[in-house]
Order: sequence, then C-alpha cells, then structure tokens
Amino acid sequence: MKALVINGKNEPLSLETRDEPRTGEGEAIVKIHAAALNHRDLWIQKGMYAGLRYPIIPGSDGAGLLIGSDKPVIINPSINWGDKPGHQDQQSFRILGLPDDGTFAEYVKVPASNIVEKPAHLSFEEAAALPLAGLTAYRAVFIRAQVREREKVLITGIGGGVALFALQFALAAGAQVYVTTSDGEKMRDALSMGARDAVNYKDDNWAQELQELAGSFDVIIDGAGGDGMNMLMNLASPGGRLVFYGATRGNPSNVEVRRIFWKQLNILGSTMGSPEDFDAMVAFVNRHHIRPIVDRVFPLAEGEAAMRHMDESRQFGKIVLKVL
Amino acid sequence: MKALVINGKNEPLSLETRDEPRTGEGEAIVKIHAAALNHRDLWIQKGMYAGLRYPIIPGSDGAGLLIGSDKPVIINPSINWGDKPGHQDQQSFRILGLPDDGTFAEYVKVPASNIVEKPAHLSFEEAAALPLAGLTAYRAVFIRAQVREREKVLITGIGGGVALFALQFALAAGAQVYVTTSDGEKMRDALSMGARDAVNYKDDNWAQELQELAGSFDVIIDGAGGDGMNMLMNLASPGGRLVFYGATRGNPSNVEVRRIFWKQLNILGSTMGSPEDFDAMVAFVNRHHIRPIVDRVFPLAEGEAAMRHMDESRQFGKIVLKVL
Repeated sequence: MKALVINGKNEPLSLETRDEPRTGEGEAIVKIHAAALNHRDLWIQKGMYAGLRYPIIPGSDGAGLLIGSDKPVIINPSINWGDKPGHQDQQSFRILGLPDDGTFAEYVKVPASNIVEKPAHLSFEEAAALPLAGLTAYRAVFIRAQVREREKVLITGIGGGVALFALQFALAAGAQVYVTTSDGEKMRDALSMGARDAVNYKDDNWAQELQELAGSFDVIIDGAGGDGMNMLMNLASPGGRLVFYGATRGNPSNVEVRRIFWKQLNILGSTMGSPEDFDAMVAFVNRHHIRPIVDRVFPLAEGEAAMRHMDESRQFGKIVLKVL
Repeated sequence: MKALVINGKNEPLSLETRDEPRTGEGEAIVKIHAAALNHRDLWIQKGMYAGLRYPIIPGSDGAGLLIGSDKPVIINPSINWGDKPGHQDQQSFRILGLPDDGTFAEYVKVPASNIVEKPAHLSFEEAAALPLAGLTAYRAVFIRAQVREREKVLITGIGGGVALFALQFALAAGAQVYVTTSDGEKMRDALSMGARDAVNYKDDNWAQELQELAGSFDVIIDGAGGDGMNMLMNLASPGGRLVFYGATRGNPSNVEVRRIFWKQLNILGSTMGSPEDFDAMVAFVNRHHIRPIVDRVFPLAEGEAAMRHMDESRQFGKIVLKVL
C-alpha cells in the first residue's frame, strides 16, 4: 500500500510502499478515503513528542470503508482510554499515529472498538476532519466546562481545529461565543459562523477589549497557555470554568493564586476523550448537522506540503489528505 | 461593652470600652462567650487586607447567647454570600470582622440569618473555633473536592485551623489522609488524630517521600500556594482534584500546563462557603461528633498576646479568646 512515512527527526513526509496491515483479534482495518492533519503530527515530525519512534506512518484522523463490511466509518483515535470517565489510563492509553502506524496510508489497523459509523451528512473529507479535534473540543466544552445555553464563552486562537469545533459546538448549545485570533480574515470567518465578537490577541489591550465587549466569561476554552493564562483568569466570571487543552505558548511565568480561590475558579485540564465522549460527540454532530470546517484538501502524495501549510498556522479549519 | 480594637496599621489590639451594638431590621445580637482568631485578623492588623478601615473590632468567629432568646448559638461569618452556590457575590459579600465590627467584644451584631444553633456537644470555646475554618474546610473537602470514602487525600500545612478541620472531615468521611508540616510535634499530633502518614515539607525530598508513601493523591487541599504547587500537581493522581483556599507562600513562578491537561487535573479555588455549606458543615460536625482542636485559650484582655502567638505559627488548632 502507499503510505506517508517520517523516517527521522525533521525529515519530510515520504511517500513509500508498505505492506498492508493484517488484523489480529479485536482489530479492524479501514481502507482510508481521507485523513486529516493535527499539530501532533507536526510535533512528531519535529521530534518534539514523547515516545518518538521512526520510521512511523503518522496520522490520527481517518475516514473510509471498514474492510469486511464496506461500511463508511470514522476512527476514534483515542485508543485504550481505560475504564475511568475522568481520565485516560496513563499506561495503556495512546493516540493513533504513534506508536501505532496511523492514517496517512491506504489502510490502517485499529482496535475494532474504535470504529464508529460515519455521519451520513458528511463527505469522507469532512468526516476525516472530525475525530481528534472534535473529540477534544467536545470533552472540553461539554464534559469539562459543561457549557449551558446562554452562557458567555470565550474561545482563544480561533482557526485551529479544536477551537473551531468548540465554536461550532458551543453555538449549537445556545451559548454566546467570543473568540480571539491574530488574523483579520479569521475574525471575519468566525463572525460569519456566529461568534458574537472577535478580538485580536496581538493588540496590547485585547483583554480590556474583551471585558468591554462581554464583561466576563462563564467559560474559557484555551489551547495556548503561556502568560495569557493570567489574563484569562481575570476575564473569567466568579465560579467560572477555564479549560486548558494545550500549551502551544508554554507555561505562564506567574499565576495569581488569590484570584483562583477568591473567584472560586475551576481550572480544568482536558485532552482527547473517552469512548463515551466520542459517541456523544458524533451523536451531537449528527443531531445538529455540524459540518467540520475544511481549510484545504491535499492529495496524499502532497502530504509534506500539507504539513508545511499547517506549520505556517494560516489555516482556518482542518487540513485534509485525500487518499482515495 | 469591652472590645478589642485595632486603631491603625501594626497597632496592638487595645482593650477599650465601646457602645453596645443596636439591631436594625433582620439583625441579631449575640452576647459573645468565646471568639477565635483567624489569620485574617493578623493581616488586618498588619495592614495587608483589602478594604481596610481603622478603628475596627476584628474577629470572624464567635459563640455565645442570642440576645432575646438566650439560645446558645454560633455565627456564620460568611455574610451576604448571595444566591449562587458556586461563588460569593463579588459586590455584597463580606466576612464578619471587616468592614463590620467583629467578635472580639462582649456583643456583636450580625444578620439574623447568620445565626445557627450551637452544636450541643461543644463547649463555647470549641464552638467558637468552628465557624470560619470549619466552613472553609467543609467547602474545600466536600463541595469542591468531593472527597469520597477510601480516597487518598493530602492536606498540607497541618496545624492551621482549616487544615485541621479538613483532616477531621476527610477522616470522618472515610478517606486515607496524609499531611505535611514542618514541625515534628505537629506530625505526631496529626498521626494520633488518624492521619496515615506525615512528611516534613522542609525536607528537600518531601514530594518524593509522599510519592513513596502514597503513590499519588486523588485530592490535595492546600492553603499555601507558591512553588510547591507544581509538586502538588505532580503528586496528584490523573483526574485529581486540587483545592487551593489560600496562598500564604504567594504565587508559583512556573506552572506546568502540559501536566494540567495531560493528567486531566481539576484545580479548584475555594474560599469560605454558602449558607447551605455552613448548615451542612454544622450537621456533619453534629453527626460525627467532631470536636474542634483548640490550641490555647486566652482571656479577652490578652488578645494581643494571642495574636502574637498566632504570628509565630506554633499553634496546633484554633486560638480562642474567652470573653465571658
């Protein structure tokens, strides 16, 4: 089969011919029609991820046909979550695409329990864009933050896959959603999707602008971390829930603890999601006819160009690889 | 009436004669039999508290007889919490003893709704030790952390009022409780109360010791903050709940965000509690026959000596003023 392979740190994705995977007990094989990129793939390519091994076929997101039944399916990339709803098992848990070979290939092998029916209203390209980012956003918004109708929600860094799904999910739940980005075009796109307002986080007074627009926020969903965290805690309403699902800007150099206890804040870490979260996410997407935002589709052979496109952070939505 | 008064920043408590308070609508007066100190009183004396005003009669904790009925009562020092269980109203909320005159006096005036029947198994001195620290601990342990039977709980800085109530409450709930302190005598006292083990947080490898003793902790209750927070997040189990109710050691200089999201941690701020929390706390104390730990009782006239005793941080339990 054809597959994209990373052969070492900072090596480009290389299109190679590999043996097709063979199933063992409890496993399934999907003939991939479309895959999607995640920042995780980029970190793996850059050698900045725990448990690296090369060569590896990366890719956590895929949609295609289940071998043996020809049913259109998507893959839940959250493997061996374990039996606790509150957290993944820290030993057995892994994300598809490292250490197991991933979806940037014509075929991928996964546990049969990670196969879920493809939402009928989505093309394979759209469906491939859903799993990892949709799951992460769903858990952040509904399981961790428990966003409710009419609540004020701030989502930072709109344009990324998780942030966009969080926007779509929170809007579908009836929340009033505000976003930040550093890109004027992304601001306009987010407003056209239904965001109440958008602020440029590169403005010196971005936090003050948000305060003037919204007062304070019941819920804040952030994947950046860094020194912005203190401002986010300032922008949170008393009793507010702040969910952090990433730290692309690193750690904060200071955290105002008094603000945490006096405002009775809830600072909630979130990553990926349980099988129940995945099923609930797909059901929500079906019920609300949510369509993932696809930024651009590349043919499989242009995987390296797709990676470089993601590395430039210009995308609004998911970057998809068309495999078939 | 006799009352202890702070007349200015860093001024000693001065025993003075003041007019007795007079009730308005919805107010009640308690003839104080015993009062108790909190760190808050010390910070007010040191000029390190928001909304200072002098002269002030400090004191948040009191037990005595309700004027008009002669019923033995304790006072809930959490005034005008508001109608949200999740947080106090940020405008109207205040703690007895600033800006309102407090309990270090023969009489105190409070909202009638803040009067609660004294637990029958407690002396006035014990009952006076309960309200503020008991409420803070109850909310931290049960409302915020939701400690359950057999969970592993770490309580830092044992010896302080909140930490000791947290220990008593968590033990009564069937948890396995570990503590830290820097004082060998306090370690022994905590063990004799039922703590599983105690570690000296001044040891360089205190966190490693705790890890060897307990593995990891489902719940951590901390009032110190500071750079220890990172170690506490390290010691927390995946999905663990860390409740911060104070920051006596200031803010951390770094917080590992990746640990927060990868371990799905819950970092929960907590302060004081709602009227419902207070009622639940008193019911719990009655049901489990919990007796507050009283470190030492001073006569009202020796209030300044009592404050200096607290400032030395040598106490194990609450410091009480006998008024009547």
